[in-house]
Amino acid sequence: MLLDKGISVAYIFNKIKYDLVYILLVGLITNLLATYARQYFPEMPLTIPVFLGTAISILLSFKMNQSYDRWWEARKVWGAIVNDSRSFVLQLQSFLDPNEATANCIQKLAYRQIAWCYCLGQSLRGLNPLEGIEDLLMEADRAKLLQHTNKPLALLQQHTVDIQELRLTNKMDVFRHVQLDNTLVRLCDSMGKAERINSTVFPSTYRHFLHFIIYLFVVTLSIALNNVEIIFELPLLLLISAAFLLIEKSAYHLQDPFRNRPSDVSVTAIARTIDINIRQLLGESDVPLPVKPNDYYLL
Amino acid sequence: MLLDKGISVAYIFNKIKYDLVYILLVGLITNLLATYARQYFPEMPLTIPVFLGTAISILLSFKMNQSYDRWWEARKVWGAIVNDSRSFVLQLQSFLDPNEATANCIQKLAYRQIAWCYCLGQSLRGLNPLEGIEDLLMEADRAKLLQHTNKPLALLQQHTVDIQELRLTNKMDVFRHVQLDNTLVRLCDSMGKAERINSTVFPSTYRHFLHFIIYLFVVTLSIALNNVEIIFELPLLLLISAAFLLIEKSAYHLQDPFRNRPSDVSVTAIARTIDINIRQLLGESDVPLPVKPNDYYLL
Amino acid sequence: MLLDKGISVAYIFNKIKYDLVYILLVGLITNLLATYARQYFPEMPLTIPVFLGTAISILLSFKMNQSYDRWWEARKVWGAIVNDSRSFVLQLQSFLDPNEATANCIQKLAYRQIAWCYCLGQSLRGLNPLEGIEDLLMEADRAKLLQHTNKPLALLQQHTVDIQELRLTNKMDVFRHVQLDNTLVRLCDSMGKAERINSTVFPSTYRHFLHFIIYLFVVTLSIALNNVEIIFELPLLLLISAAFLLIEKSAYHLQDPFRNRPSDVSVTAIARTIDINIRQLLGESDVPLPVKPNDYYLL
Amino acid sequence: MLLDKGISVAYIFNKIKYDLVYILLVGLITNLLATYARQYFPEMPLTIPVFLGTAISILLSFKMNQSYDRWWEARKVWGAIVNDSRSFVLQLQSFLDPNEATANCIQKLAYRQIAWCYCLGQSLRGLNPLEGIEDLLMEADRAKLLQHTNKPLALLQQHTVDIQELRLTNKMDVFRHVQLDNTLVRLCDSMGKAERINSTVFPSTYRHFLHFIIYLFVVTLSIALNNVEIIFELPLLLLISAAFLLIEKSAYHLQDPFRNRPSDVSVTAIARTIDINIRQLLGESDVPLPVKPNDYYLL
Amino acid sequence: MLLDKGISVAYIFNKIKYDLVYILLVGLITNLLATYARQYFPEMPLTIPVFLGTAISILLSFKMNQSYDRWWEARKVWGAIVNDSRSFVLQLQSFLDPNEATANCIQKLAYRQIAWCYCLGQSLRGLNPLEGIEDLLMEADRAKLLQHTNKPLALLQQHTVDIQELRLTNKMDVFRHVQLDNTLVRLCDSMGKAERINSTVFPSTYRHFLHFIIYLFVVTLSIALNNVEIIFELPLLLLISAAFLLIEKSAYHLQDPFRNRPSDVSVTAIARTIDINIRQLLGESDVPLPVKPNDYYLL
Repeated sequence: MLLDKGISVAYIFNKIKYDLVYILLVGLITNLLATYARQYFPEMPLTIPVFLGTAISILLSFKMNQSYDRWWEARKVWGAIVNDSRSFVLQLQSFLDPNEATANCIQKLAYRQIAWCYCLGQSLRGLNPLEGIEDLLMEADRAKLLQHTNKPLALLQQHTVDIQELRLTNKMDVFRHVQLDNTLVRLCDSMGKAERINSTVFPSTYRHFLHFIIYLFVVTLSIALNNVEIIFELPLLLLISAAFLLIEKSAYHLQDPFRNRPSDVSVTAIARTIDINIRQLLGESDVPLPVKPNDYYLL
Repeated sequence: MLLDKGISVAYIFNKIKYDLVYILLVGLITNLLATYARQYFPEMPLTIPVFLGTAISILLSFKMNQSYDRWWEARKVWGAIVNDSRSFVLQLQSFLDPNEATANCIQKLAYRQIAWCYCLGQSLRGLNPLEGIEDLLMEADRAKLLQHTNKPLALLQQHTVDIQELRLTNKMDVFRHVQLDNTLVRLCDSMGKAERINSTVFPSTYRHFLHFIIYLFVVTLSIALNNVEIIFELPLLLLISAAFLLIEKSAYHLQDPFRNRPSDVSVTAIARTIDINIRQLLGESDVPLPVKPNDYYLL
Repeated sequence: MLLDKGISVAYIFNKIKYDLVYILLVGLITNLLATYARQYFPEMPLTIPVFLGTAISILLSFKMNQSYDRWWEARKVWGAIVNDSRSFVLQLQSFLDPNEATANCIQKLAYRQIAWCYCLGQSLRGLNPLEGIEDLLMEADRAKLLQHTNKPLALLQQHTVDIQELRLTNKMDVFRHVQLDNTLVRLCDSMGKAERINSTVFPSTYRHFLHFIIYLFVVTLSIALNNVEIIFELPLLLLISAAFLLIEKSAYHLQDPFRNRPSDVSVTAIARTIDINIRQLLGESDVPLPVKPNDYYLL
Repeated sequence: MLLDKGISVAYIFNKIKYDLVYILLVGLITNLLATYARQYFPEMPLTIPVFLGTAISILLSFKMNQSYDRWWEARKVWGAIVNDSRSFVLQLQSFLDPNEATANCIQKLAYRQIAWCYCLGQSLRGLNPLEGIEDLLMEADRAKLLQHTNKPLALLQQHTVDIQELRLTNKMDVFRHVQLDNTLVRLCDSMGKAERINSTVFPSTYRHFLHFIIYLFVVTLSIALNNVEIIFELPLLLLISAAFLLIEKSAYHLQDPFRNRPSDVSVTAIARTIDINIRQLLGESDVPLPVKPNDYYLL
Repeated sequence: MLLDKGISVAYIFNKIKYDLVYILLVGLITNLLATYARQYFPEMPLTIPVFLGTAISILLSFKMNQSYDRWWEARKVWGAIVNDSRSFVLQLQSFLDPNEATANCIQKLAYRQIAWCYCLGQSLRGLNPLEGIEDLLMEADRAKLLQHTNKPLALLQQHTVDIQELRLTNKMDVFRHVQLDNTLVRLCDSMGKAERINSTVFPSTYRHFLHFIIYLFVVTLSIALNNVEIIFELPLLLLISAAFLLIEKSAYHLQDPFRNRPSDVSVTAIARTIDINIRQLLGESDVPLPVKPNDYYLL
């Protein structure tokens, strides 16, 4: 998640440097051609590139909307995971009669819930899903994970088996079992929603056509302005194109919010928050620290 | 689902080749008429076609939004099917006391759930809904499917009958029955939602009017530019029209996401993911491979 | 529901013929005035009508969005009715122990559910709500309908009474009763949602102001173009206005999706689909045929 | 709710008469200044006001969208109240064993539900919330209302107490109690949603800035057009500004849908519909008439 | 929440004074450079800044939409808190048999619910979350809060423990326990949603690029207008830029609705409303007064 403090110029420039070089070249070549072969070149009315620029703004506006919606939807999914993780622990504490045996059982399930959050975040980002969660899982449970491709789903299965065990040993009746199952269904839903956003490519054709129109805009604008001194024309061309490209790039990054990029949904920091909350709900006082933000973003 | 890697030029060109030929013809004829009959032709101010172009951008933006929303809604429905299929198997494992008889029963229901996903995807795409799912269904169940028009609905009916059987034989009480019924209601909902998107034509009038305005734009633009050399005018006309047509075509394909086209929701690949997940939840180690994407798309 | 095949020219022309005549008259009169009284008339810069045209496009875009959303919401409501009708029958079959008495009871409720769908569709369209559903209802139930203004609501009441009877005669316990009640609540919701869309007029002021601006556009454009030959000016005026009016008219028709018009949500065809589905779920082989589409639409 | 029939010219004119007078004055003064002090005045290119006009259209489009969404959300809330009121009565009839004592109890609760609808509508509109509902409430219940600020909430409390009584006297078990409680929770939700829309002012800054830009548009347009005869310039100025102001005013009225205005959600008429429906569900034949619409609206 | 009455000029001016000074400086410097170095400066066609202005309007429209949606979502979350707080108290009163012991218990839980609302609002705004709620909590409960970072979550945990106690002492069976748990899950959800909106920064890149384009607009406009008298040019520049900046600033403030600013969601006033409602539901007559609005806003 990008913070509000401001973003380094280097970071912004880095995002579009290749595009700017292409645009500089296209602008220069068109300008030279239009200057040295002026008699063969048409009189391009400024209205044409300006109209293309308006069209680009309208299409960008669509792109920004949809990308922002994907990013916000991903954030909502992680918000729901926060809420259901907390509710899950509160429900266990409320549904099981208070004694030492259940306290151990609650701790085991609560720790696995923390592990599930870290594991899901890492698996979405294509990192090792099991890194750093060994201490939160029982030895036997860790072993069972190995034969599963989808680790977070396997952890949910361990939850359901443990809850079945609670019912079979009469620590919980079937009504509370069903109510806890509702929470697990919601967690399974949130997991699937995050996977959906992660695995579904935003229709890439729009992006290609948008780039195509931006270059068409650059070419027509540089023909239309070829009676202006090149020392004024090129910066103007670059500045306007840069504005379009920067917005397009921002939208492009937002639309995939689990790629280990500064514009990501901050899944690590959110999982840490859940970690802290759940440990305090268990009455522990030795809790980890919140994730510290980087210079200008928080992962 | 189109991938991000880039799309072959041939594919893009193929999508709009007839439209481009029409536009070339319309542009040429208008230009010739305007040149040879200049005295009878009005002075067309460039403002007119440019205004039409802006109007087209605005209407396209509406079209893109609605088409994207349909496609994303279809993708959400298939995401819900993933989630509920997983939850269904987890619930069966959690609700039935662990022994060999129930393990068989769970396997039967889980395999039928996998079959249901393949069957629904194929029936939405107008393919043979039963192809490749014979091994996942019992002989008797396959026979019962024949008298049904809507095969996926018939499979859901078999689920409900089996779950009733579990209650009648006291393997499950009525509370768990009702909770499983909730999952079946959600699956029935998702099926109906996919059918709705598939069977409801996007209001076709918008599309016709949009094409009408694009041609009006081409005619007025080629009159307005008829003092420009035809060798510059025609490419410009084609490039701008191509941009509009490509975006319109992309939107048109997105709005029907179950048509066996590269821009489809990747129902086969998603059903395969469910297949793999469910088999691993059953503890099987011999699972099928994920669907491999084509050059630039995944079905 | 309009089909994708294309719409007859006559149908489209019919929709806006009076408006086109008005616009022709306004254009002609303005043009004549501006020609014969040129000295009293201002020089109208083309920028003014063009700006009005852009404003019209933006406002039309709002109108199209909201109308489409109403239409799609109506379609979703009917989709939910399909899903809950199927689920209702599946639930009855799963919740009642299988024997002849319950089979009769299930058939009675399932037939009434089919009748409810036809009845709701016809009552929304202002047709006789009871036409063609006599065979699906018991004699006694039909009699009770007479004293009710809202026939579909009365049918739902008969459902609730029958389900109460099942509980009172111990064919079903209270948990299953409550679960069936959830389905009836959803059906009652869908009915109310369809009635809401049908009875709530889209704010009519927007429509009047939009027409007002379109005429302002026509007047200013025909003054601005009055140095163009009238034989070119009038068709241009008519074509641009026609584009606006056609889009406005399409939006206007979409916004009221239960008016017995080609752009309606196809409630009859959907009710027939439910009819076929439910009869096949009951094991009947003699089912009605799907509703055949008209030349270019399906009601 | 405004009807589709058309709106009296007087009503529309009334809505914006003061604004039009201001605009007339501003236009006149600017024009006079620009005429008598022409040498000090700049040459205002028409592009400036035209660009402002386009900006106004875009901002108005945002305003229209959000206002319409508020109004439609308010309408949905009242639709949910219709649905849950009907479901509430159907549930009572289905959950209580049929005999005379329960029939009295159902009537008492059903009448109170009717009263709740009238009372909520009147309290949202700032009218006396208890007017006209005396006959629908028991003497004792009416007395208890006095010490409550929020009358509809107090009526809901009376519902919960009566339903508790039904459980305590064993007329209903706890499952049905919980299911009825679900309905009351939804009614409480709908009440809160309507209160939220009513008490939350739409961000007023947008409105002020929009007015500010409209006046900037009027001033720049009247300078730009000051070489046009004032007899043509002023009507044009007024007509274009009127279009903007009318749309802004319509949006402004829609955004507060419970203010006793013609554009309100028709809460009185909807409450009457509930009244009629519920009485017919109770088997009464002497039901009130639907609310008759005014000339061009329905409250 | 800003009220409708009008906003002081000072407040509006204050919001953008620094930006206006920058724009004044940029405009002046560009104008001077363009005047004294006219031969080196290009002829800037007015179309360029006007096109940039249109692009700014379109991008602002996106920004306004998303900011408004965030603000309205935050308002909805607080609306849900109102509804569930009321329902929670009504459920307690309906689920517990009426006697003195339960009355005390209900009062304790209801007071804690009031405290939770104040506490959550204050913690979202970064104020001391426990201020002013001491009287609403038991001594022992207050002590337990100290070791928790997230105070509102700790209060919810105390709710769940108390409700468990009610079940363990047989004052409530497991069905009612589960139904109350549903309400607590919804409250936990609303809390998490408010935290999500509060902690997630709106993608800041859009904002920087928007400012960048606004300055590009100012520079190009002041070059384009440099043949206009500076005494007319500068005010025009400032007024148009002010309009853009004011709208951007309004959107910026709306997007973070829990920052102790006049445009905030009025969480204090809403918590007070809940306080009054709950006390009247408990039968108390000595209730606090509603929060009085400030001159032009309500916190």
